[in-house]
Amino acid sequence: MTHNVAILGASGYTGAELIRLIAGHPNIEIAALSADRKAGQSMAGVFPHLRHMDLPTLVTIGDIDFSGIDLCFCALPHKTSQEVIAALPRDLKIVDLSADFRLSDPAEYQKWYGNPHAAVDLQAEAVYGLTEFYRDDIAAARLVAGTGCNAATGQFALGPLIGAGVIDLDEIIMDLKCGVSGAGRSLKENLLHAELSEGYNAYSVGGVHRHLGEFDQEFAKIAGRPVHVQFTPHLIPANRGILATVYVKGDAQVIHDTFTAAYADEPFICVLPMGDTPSSHHVRGSNFVHIGVVPDRIAGRTIVVACLDNLTKGSSGQALQNANLMLGENETEGLMMAPLFP
Amino acid sequence: MTHNVAILGASGYTGAELIRLIAGHPNIEIAALSADRKAGQSMAGVFPHLRHMDLPTLVTIGDIDFSGIDLCFCALPHKTSQEVIAALPRDLKIVDLSADFRLSDPAEYQKWYGNPHAAVDLQAEAVYGLTEFYRDDIAAARLVAGTGCNAATGQFALGPLIGAGVIDLDEIIMDLKCGVSGAGRSLKENLLHAELSEGYNAYSVGGVHRHLGEFDQEFAKIAGRPVHVQFTPHLIPANRGILATVYVKGDAQVIHDTFTAAYADEPFICVLPMGDTPSSHHVRGSNFVHIGVVPDRIAGRTIVVACLDNLTKGSSGQALQNANLMLGENETEGLMMAPLFP
Amino acid sequence: MTHNVAILGASGYTGAELIRLIAGHPNIEIAALSADRKAGQSMAGVFPHLRHMDLPTLVTIGDIDFSGIDLCFCALPHKTSQEVIAALPRDLKIVDLSADFRLSDPAEYQKWYGNPHAAVDLQAEAVYGLTEFYRDDIAAARLVAGTGCNAATGQFALGPLIGAGVIDLDEIIMDLKCGVSGAGRSLKENLLHAELSEGYNAYSVGGVHRHLGEFDQEFAKIAGRPVHVQFTPHLIPANRGILATVYVKGDAQVIHDTFTAAYADEPFICVLPMGDTPSSHHVRGSNFVHIGVVPDRIAGRTIVVACLDNLTKGSSGQALQNANLMLGENETEGLMMAPLFP
Amino acid sequence: MTHNVAILGASGYTGAELIRLIAGHPNIEIAALSADRKAGQSMAGVFPHLRHMDLPTLVTIGDIDFSGIDLCFCALPHKTSQEVIAALPRDLKIVDLSADFRLSDPAEYQKWYGNPHAAVDLQAEAVYGLTEFYRDDIAAARLVAGTGCNAATGQFALGPLIGAGVIDLDEIIMDLKCGVSGAGRSLKENLLHAELSEGYNAYSVGGVHRHLGEFDQEFAKIAGRPVHVQFTPHLIPANRGILATVYVKGDAQVIHDTFTAAYADEPFICVLPMGDTPSSHHVRGSNFVHIGVVPDRIAGRTIVVACLDNLTKGSSGQALQNANLMLGENETEGLMMAPLFP
Repeated sequence: MTHNVAILGASGYTGAELIRLIAGHPNIEIAALSADRKAGQSMAGVFPHLRHMDLPTLVTIGDIDFSGIDLCFCALPHKTSQEVIAALPRDLKIVDLSADFRLSDPAEYQKWYGNPHAAVDLQAEAVYGLTEFYRDDIAAARLVAGTGCNAATGQFALGPLIGAGVIDLDEIIMDLKCGVSGAGRSLKENLLHAELSEGYNAYSVGGVHRHLGEFDQEFAKIAGRPVHVQFTPHLIPANRGILATVYVKGDAQVIHDTFTAAYADEPFICVLPMGDTPSSHHVRGSNFVHIGVVPDRIAGRTIVVACLDNLTKGSSGQALQNANLMLGENETEGLMMAPLFP
Repeated sequence: MTHNVAILGASGYTGAELIRLIAGHPNIEIAALSADRKAGQSMAGVFPHLRHMDLPTLVTIGDIDFSGIDLCFCALPHKTSQEVIAALPRDLKIVDLSADFRLSDPAEYQKWYGNPHAAVDLQAEAVYGLTEFYRDDIAAARLVAGTGCNAATGQFALGPLIGAGVIDLDEIIMDLKCGVSGAGRSLKENLLHAELSEGYNAYSVGGVHRHLGEFDQEFAKIAGRPVHVQFTPHLIPANRGILATVYVKGDAQVIHDTFTAAYADEPFICVLPMGDTPSSHHVRGSNFVHIGVVPDRIAGRTIVVACLDNLTKGSSGQALQNANLMLGENETEGLMMAPLFP
Repeated sequence: MTHNVAILGASGYTGAELIRLIAGHPNIEIAALSADRKAGQSMAGVFPHLRHMDLPTLVTIGDIDFSGIDLCFCALPHKTSQEVIAALPRDLKIVDLSADFRLSDPAEYQKWYGNPHAAVDLQAEAVYGLTEFYRDDIAAARLVAGTGCNAATGQFALGPLIGAGVIDLDEIIMDLKCGVSGAGRSLKENLLHAELSEGYNAYSVGGVHRHLGEFDQEFAKIAGRPVHVQFTPHLIPANRGILATVYVKGDAQVIHDTFTAAYADEPFICVLPMGDTPSSHHVRGSNFVHIGVVPDRIAGRTIVVACLDNLTKGSSGQALQNANLMLGENETEGLMMAPLFP
Repeated sequence: MTHNVAILGASGYTGAELIRLIAGHPNIEIAALSADRKAGQSMAGVFPHLRHMDLPTLVTIGDIDFSGIDLCFCALPHKTSQEVIAALPRDLKIVDLSADFRLSDPAEYQKWYGNPHAAVDLQAEAVYGLTEFYRDDIAAARLVAGTGCNAATGQFALGPLIGAGVIDLDEIIMDLKCGVSGAGRSLKENLLHAELSEGYNAYSVGGVHRHLGEFDQEFAKIAGRPVHVQFTPHLIPANRGILATVYVKGDAQVIHDTFTAAYADEPFICVLPMGDTPSSHHVRGSNFVHIGVVPDRIAGRTIVVACLDNLTKGSSGQALQNANLMLGENETEGLMMAPLFP
């Protein structure tokens, strides 16, 4: 049985990545693509790498007839997304890739994003889209909120450890390195090749990155008490990839065992042998997560390194994984392609 | 029906690329993997990006039982390949990715490669593996010689034009730009990141690159007379991709029409609208070829730009495409994945 | 004796490069820096790599008192430059880095740039700034027009050959590869890291690049007859560098001898031994030009490869070299720093 | 007065960087260059970017007459260096760039490097080469041990804080990102462009990196008690640059004040305004260090980010700075060039 989907915001990187993935899915058909400012253009013009595919012409959201759509992916900017989704049919299955429905507390949303939420009822309805942690809820959900790509990486590295109580909750430091596509297809000076290539820098230093809202919310839920991590992201001269180096206090073997048990049946999560650490090269373009554990020379301290592709597992791959669950498809359908290396 | 294949030389880039592609093929099973110097190791150790796959441990070629193998991919270095293939069962279907069986004339082989050929009878038997030009021969072949990656790009840009007699055969200049993976996983100073990143240079200047042997052989066959092109490759700081800028004397519209007609039914070749030119970004990781045609400001001169991924369409994708034909599979099976962008 | 200079348009890459170079010049003092939209900001804010220098705060052009200025560098956008320079004191020495005064014929200017020239008298006054070819004129000039960076590269590769009559003037093809900083600090989608890194493409194909106006003008002057070259630039994933591969009909030894004689006394031009070709790695950040000559396998054809750094010798280094002449300084002062490698 | 210097190991990156820097020094002459395996070659062949310089031909160390040499730079591999230096004249001034004389305790040396030290007397004589911390000792020294490039970066970020007692000595985590040239010009698979470009990874995880020996030694000296930091380096796809993100417990304002006071008179160290953080782009090719301080959202925690160019301030620039002191030259001579950006 074929499911018809629409993708709103198809002219951005997460939109293009969704199309790339769906191209390999046997049971999903792309019925409509929107991009308000590029309405009327062909996808071959906007993303020439999709030139070989037979895709609908870009239209405005208003021009889409949602009656035949089984599920809608929303790859719109933050804030726009909540307004658009509020106006969509209330029985339409939706996977949102923006930040708009990640935080369930309106006050927290306003604290991190600066504006009051325009669709508080939907905020309450939305299920947090970290598949491995909310699988059953997602399968039953109508509206799923895709997670932040950094937030996903950090949760894969910390969720099971916090849940199992094997690390000191007050001493967690996450130093994260990410590629530039996470910033989207936006015209900013610091995203130019000439400004980024051959250099790297920290940004949002000091605990001001918005994905901390997700860490605070999710880790508190798991721990049953507030957990505040330190989190410093760095921009790396590469297009894809997130690598989180997490410094925790806890026993490395216990930590490794905890991961091994927690992720034993997960199709996309590879726990590396004790002492090995992953590389962003080895997950590029795939939906896999690689996690490594190493004891530090200082007794009682452990380094956890987790790594994924921000556009795939961190965003569009996660979205398709969730859509598979919502549509009754096999969770891994269209997502088992190997990484591209070199 | 499942076909069992072996891959010899699985520790190089073309071997890894074959495995990546076959991972998405429903009817091909990898039964054996060889890498003489790394025999005994797991593929996860040699190529951690394939860690999620259940693959045979690397063995020596001598340890492979070929009786259950339907087809063997040879991704070995030049010269080694001819010796190994000469010793394989004579009824085994083989797709060779090395340079050893590309030239059918032993004298030409020796001229370009410097040594006498060690398996002249197989050299005579081998079919040249440019699928779009030798489809029927390949389907019936036992031994297929994968083409040079530069040679494939240049032939897509010139073959139909030479065949149709629409360009001046004595005035062809091909300026080619290629990524570094074409040089393989070899430890050479000029392939180091610190030596290559942020810079670029011509190499094999003056008509000494070995792929000229293929151009000479194939273009003479098409034209029925010798055709000598000028050919200068350049090493670009990128991992994948070949982009050939070809300067010809002929009418741009006639040339564009010739391509459109020649490639009308080809699943992997996209002729761009007149005036557009391709980018290596837009074919990366895929089996597609993009070809553009632009008239120069000087009347009677035309620029043709052709572009593909050297590891996919230029090598392992081409090999799988040929294997599909030899095994009676649909030619495009396992090869329709979209390019990875960004 | 210290010369006071002003730099107009100091917030772009060529402005920053001028400051970097002048930092090493013993006799030039930067007295004023303008950047209309960033007036009031410090250079440390606009270009943090210049943070250690004691530089004037950015002001508007109108706020500069030119009475104490000995020479003014104009690093403004095309079209703006001619308007600004027309309003500057007529006795002020000026080195313009824009395209506005490169073409001396108003009709040619309008043909390539699309608008009538706003300062035709200055256009007539300006001296073309290719130092090695116009040294005496530049030393005596008040207004010098910096050349296009591609145009400079091509002229180093062809000027002496055309002048000596050793190549066929109707059969010149220049295939050029350039880094992205030549496009300036402009917010365009194709200049984003995510769009450019790991890929490459031709642009302005077919003889429409504006630097052809300079080739046409200068080569006709040298040859005493029209010379139309074919010229295709390519954008390469690197920040700096231009490498021109030029295909000519002529004898390689004669060509090499011609270069050796023409550039014998030039401090910045290295003619490589016959058969060697240059790399953009080896001129980065310097004012040097490397030129190589190789005979093709086809008799009577030769490949010339010329290479320089677009921001240094192609633009700001050239500008300082010219300023040195205009100010009576040693031509090489501040410009002999070695390239940065790796 | 001109000083004659020899550079041993001139065919590596630090050797080439020394030559680049000395090219801009008015009072230092390069009298001899050695490279045992490349003896007899010209530097233009080994490093074509130095082609414009008039440099001595490479010789073996044994062929150098040290009687006219005022100072010798040793850019040899670890272990080789101690053997070579032991055999040099005992009155020759030496700046060693290897790891051989960084650790003063023979047991510590053996612990980190695996072999007993071959020149324990020289180990005792050598002065640790972190100029800003050992200025007077270096000026009086005969043998100076260049620091590790990572070690230098970390000490700039922590030395004054440990000295002033303003951070918790038991809770220091340093997450470091470095470019690939720090690994030298060595033929290793993971240093290939195809393996490194577009990806990144941690290495030497868990407290096994040799530069920890330097941290332990120096921080204990400053603190008067053992200080063990956690230290994880990461390999970034860039050629130059080290950026250390250091997580400490202490008050951000006090920390910023401490840096401001400690580095007030340092010509090469820029303490950024509170809240700003540096980028490796902005120190490339220069001898500058940029240091930023940001308070974390968690009270009492602070992030310090320090950044320098590994080949310049981290190695060859530091070496020249020390040589200036040893030769009675101005400490900054030849070292004030601005960074190369972009």
